[in-house]
Formats: sequence, C-alpha cells, structure tokens
Amino acid sequence: MAKKIKPEDLTCPLPITEHDTIQLAHGSGGKMMTDLISRLFVWAFDNPALNKQDDQAVVEIGKQRLSFTTDSFVVDPIFFPGGDIGELAVYGTVNDICMNGARPLYLSVGMIIEEGMPLADLEKIVVSMKRAAEEAGVVIVTGDTKVVNKGKGDKLFINTAGIGILEHDYTISADQLRPGDKILLSGTIGDHGIAVLSKREGLSFETPVESDTCPLNSLVAQILKAGHVHAMRDPTRGGVAATLNEFAHASDVGIHIREDHIPVKPAVSGACEVLGLDLLYVANEGKLIAAVPPDKAEAVLRAMKSHPLGQDAAMIGEVTSEQPGMVSMTTRIGGRRIVDMPVAEQLPRIC
Amino acid sequence: MAKKIKPEDLTCPLPITEHDTIQLAHGSGGKMMTDLISRLFVWAFDNPALNKQDDQAVVEIGKQRLSFTTDSFVVDPIFFPGGDIGELAVYGTVNDICMNGARPLYLSVGMIIEEGMPLADLEKIVVSMKRAAEEAGVVIVTGDTKVVNKGKGDKLFINTAGIGILEHDYTISADQLRPGDKILLSGTIGDHGIAVLSKREGLSFETPVESDTCPLNSLVAQILKAGHVHAMRDPTRGGVAATLNEFAHASDVGIHIREDHIPVKPAVSGACEVLGLDLLYVANEGKLIAAVPPDKAEAVLRAMKSHPLGQDAAMIGEVTSEQPGMVSMTTRIGGRRIVDMPVAEQLPRIC
Repeated sequence: MAKKIKPEDLTCPLPITEHDTIQLAHGSGGKMMTDLISRLFVWAFDNPALNKQDDQAVVEIGKQRLSFTTDSFVVDPIFFPGGDIGELAVYGTVNDICMNGARPLYLSVGMIIEEGMPLADLEKIVVSMKRAAEEAGVVIVTGDTKVVNKGKGDKLFINTAGIGILEHDYTISADQLRPGDKILLSGTIGDHGIAVLSKREGLSFETPVESDTCPLNSLVAQILKAGHVHAMRDPTRGGVAATLNEFAHASDVGIHIREDHIPVKPAVSGACEVLGLDLLYVANEGKLIAAVPPDKAEAVLRAMKSHPLGQDAAMIGEVTSEQPGMVSMTTRIGGRRIVDMPVAEQLPRIC
Repeated sequence: MAKKIKPEDLTCPLPITEHDTIQLAHGSGGKMMTDLISRLFVWAFDNPALNKQDDQAVVEIGKQRLSFTTDSFVVDPIFFPGGDIGELAVYGTVNDICMNGARPLYLSVGMIIEEGMPLADLEKIVVSMKRAAEEAGVVIVTGDTKVVNKGKGDKLFINTAGIGILEHDYTISADQLRPGDKILLSGTIGDHGIAVLSKREGLSFETPVESDTCPLNSLVAQILKAGHVHAMRDPTRGGVAATLNEFAHASDVGIHIREDHIPVKPAVSGACEVLGLDLLYVANEGKLIAAVPPDKAEAVLRAMKSHPLGQDAAMIGEVTSEQPGMVSMTTRIGGRRIVDMPVAEQLPRIC
C-alpha cells in the first residue's frame, strides 16, 4: 500500500487553533466561505480544474469535454412559496452545469433523511424532482439514501451531482472577463431569498413573493446561439454582489453597475426595505449574470428577452480596467458606492 | 414553460398514509431500503440506467461509456479505528465506480457541516481525503460547502459523486450471474462494522479491529486482466448477505455458500459472538464479491491473491439454478440455512 501522508506533514495556510469552529457564515457564499474554500479545500486538493473555482469543473475524458458539478441543498423550510427542496436540487445542479455553456445530461441524487420525516412529504419531493428533471431534460441515473437519527439532521438534505457535455470549444469562465464587456442580468432579483424567508419567518406581503427556481439550460442555449459570452454564473448564495465580486476577482478587472438598471419586483424591493436587507445580497435560483463582449451585447440581450425566462433581462453595467478586483455602483440617487463581497449570508440556509 | 405535473396525477406504488414516517431501517441496506428505493425512487425516476439498481450507472456520452455514482457518508463517529469519514467518502465512491470494471477518474465532494464543528477536525478530514484521492489515483475537481445550525446536523456529512471510464465493452452487473458461476470474496469480512461499533460504543477487544476501508480499483484492474467476470459488488451496508441476495434477485438464480470458506479475523468473529451480531450482515469497506464463470474462477482467484488487497481471497460458493432468488449456506457444523436479505441494518450509520 502507498505510504500514508501524516496530516502534520502538511501545513494548512488557514491558521487554525484548537478553539476555531465552523460558523454558519462558512456556508454563506461570502468572504468566510471563500476563505475556507481557498485556504483549505483548494490548498489540499490543488488541481487546475478545481483551482479555477467555477461552480463546475471542466474535465476531459477521451476527446470529450464534460462539465461536472455538485451541490448539497439544506434549505429550511423544505417547502416554500414557488418550490421545494427537490426541484431546487435538480435545477440548482442543472444551472451550475450549464453556466459554462454545457448541455446537462445526467444527475445523481444523494438523500440524507432524518428519522421521523413523514413519508408523504418525501413522496411529494421525489415527484417534484421527477417533474423538474423532465422539465430540464436531464435523467436521474443513480442515487443513494441515508437515514440519520432524529435530531441529527433536519428533515431532508439532498445532494445532486451532474454531468453535461460541452459542444463548443471555447472557455466560459469567471476569469475570462475583459474591460469593455457588458454585464447582463436575465431578470428580477431577490425573489428566491425573500420567498424562503417569508415562509420561514411566517411573514406575509401584500403581493406574495414566489421563488424563481427554474432550469436555465434552455435560456443558456438561446444565449449561445446569439453570440459568444465570456462568463456566466447564477447569483445564488450571496446574490448579485457575490457573483460580480467573484468575476472581478477572478479576471482582475473592475465592474461598474447602475442600480436603476437592475430589475426587481416591487414586492421584493419593498420586503427588503422593511426587513433591512440589501437586495444585491439576496439569493436567486433562476437568474444568470453574463459578461458579454460589447459587440455581442445587444444581440445577447435580445436573445434573452425573447426567452420566457429572460423577459425582464437588462444590461446593468460594464467591465472596466479601473479598480481591478472591485465592484462599484451608481445608486438610484446618483451617488457612487462600493459593492463589497458579503462577509456572511444575510439569510442562512437559503438553498 | 412546461406544464407542471401535480403530485396527485401520479400514484406511488408504496402505500403511504399520513402516519408513515422514515425509520433508521430505511437507510440500512436491507429490505426496507430496497422497498423504498424500488417503490418510490425507481418508480418516480424510471429509466434503464437507474432501474438496474447497480451501485453505479453506466451512461453514454458521445462514443464513450462512463460509470457515474454517488454516496453520502454519515458514519458516526467521524474518526474510527483504521480510518475517518473523509477517506471513507473517497474510497466508497471509487469502489462503486469500479465495480463494473470502470477506471475511476474524477470526484466531486459536497460537505454538510454542523455549526460548531472544530475547524481542526475538518482540516484533518480534508487532508485525509487528499491522501485517499492520491492513493486511489482520482482527482477531486469540484465541490460544495453547506453549514447547518447546531443541532440540525451531526458534525459532518460528506457526499461524493464520481465518474469513471469503461475501457472494455462487456457488461458487469448484478443481473449477469449464470448457474455454475463461482462466488469469490476478496478477503476477511466484518472488519469495518466492528471497528466503527467498537469506537462508537467504547468497546475494546484483546486484538484491536481496524476498518478495512481502501480503494479497490487496482484490485479490480488485476482481476480483469485475469478474466471476464459477470458481476462485482463491495458488500458495504447489509454486508455479504445483502450483496448475495441482490445478486440472486437481479439474476434470478440461487446462490449457495459455505460458511467454513468465508475468511474472517478471529477478533472479528469473537466480537460478533460476544455482541450477538451475524457476521454475514456486518459492513465492509474494502472487500469485493465477484461472480466468475467457472472456467475463469481459478485464474481470477490467483490474480486476487497476488494483490496486496486480496491475499485472503477465497472461493466461498457458487451460483445454482435451484431456488432462484435465494441464498443458502452450509454452516460450519454441516447444517444448511437460508441467508435472508436483512430487514434492517444491525448497526446504523456505519458509512
């Protein structure tokens, strides 16, 4: 057998004392999570596909380039306005697969169920996953079921992993942005986060807010027909702010957006105001942000708007060579502010 | 958008009342789990790759056949004699990928961490996964991190999914057994289950028992060089008894084994006796069972024995046309008993 490496042979760049513990913010999509991933996981596993820190890895098998990704879903509650943990788990992984332009094909499902969960709820969620897979055009080919003792889980956690096929030969990745690129957003933001929060906290709004969870692969296919894009990402945990900061950091460029160009439903912006939440940090589950070369931007925007999932699409900003690594915004009242990477998620367990 | 199927449009063949709840046995590897999988998951997701109910799916992308699998690991405790949840998560998925003869290539890792977990423990486990991936020759290319509130998880759950490449063109599957096939077992059984139990319950034995967790892909490669096999599976949850029953059921054949041919360490059989456990149902994490055509059996057995992980390999029985779907055993004292599918796992949360 191979010689075992002792942990003490390696020095982790994340300074760890015996008192350091995992906090909710380590799973938030913000700075603490990025830090944990970069300094622990990327340090340990260290390989070109992982190190890019896209939401999916591109791997080559034979002459074929594949897109491979995974996500665990721990959303609380498991049923929320406009969706449930089952369809979220299917769509979330479908969306991560296709953000580099790949066509999603196959999914795996791993369930961790808490003892005592009503079987009827599990059935509802499985049926919801079936419908979601059909809608997205993917096949669930393999799975695993674990049960943990009552009080050692929280009803249901679902992991999905998935494989897609890359049928083009260019690279769509967070590190491909160039100054001059236009930033496009496919629709209204904040719907998912506010929908989950309203259910969890028992809030009701005059106009009910529903999650935007949906599969984005057909929208992506439509976009790619209209023109080559440099990067795409779905702004889930950490919202639009986290995604734009990830883009700016990975490509070492500045990004400037205009608040009055960002589409938002009145009910969602109203809820954010009442609850003291910053809309830019609220999670989405059916939107994408694309960085598009300037000569293709109008065509891509038209393609988005012609798709049912992109009707509210807008050009919200552009990539600059100033202030590399930073995101700034012209506010509605004409001021200018920095849009920083969130430190932690305002709303934990949102997906 | 596609029309949404309402759950009430579908009738699940698993009779569910509002009082039915998930029990630990639904994750046990026994009859209750098989029932849940067949009647709920396979019914809902229904496709040829999944319906085979092998531990991995074979999918075609372009002209390439791939092996795709997933497993979640919820073992309690997360550190146990001979291993930890991290290496178990790597080896478990590597082993599932290769049981159809595929060469494992890429893994994804999804972590669900409980708030408050010591960061130093997470680091140890990540380093252990790094070492395990290197030992198995696979690359961890993508991942996801979620954190759940204290009391809503149990330190750490890890999901791994993985992809391998099939470089032969025949089918190795549980439904391929033929009467006359020999049943080979690659080494001593029960080590993993007893090791985890000893740690969890604070038991100590005269000779300490360590988990057998290890990657089996190099042993599989050696086996395939020696000859074509009909089926392979690693007897994890539910032990040797569950795997043999799955084989007998899927191929509609009988299987007869001899108790005195089954390799077991004295400390493990002693522990089983003291604890009242049936060895045949105790989990393994570094063993495989193969069904081999009679003319290849001797060569495959020699190949196993020449590999460091197969030194204790033995021919433990054969496939018959009698009593299709059933497993029987000649006991050490010369009697004959039925080896039934376990109803539930004797030891929950073993992997």
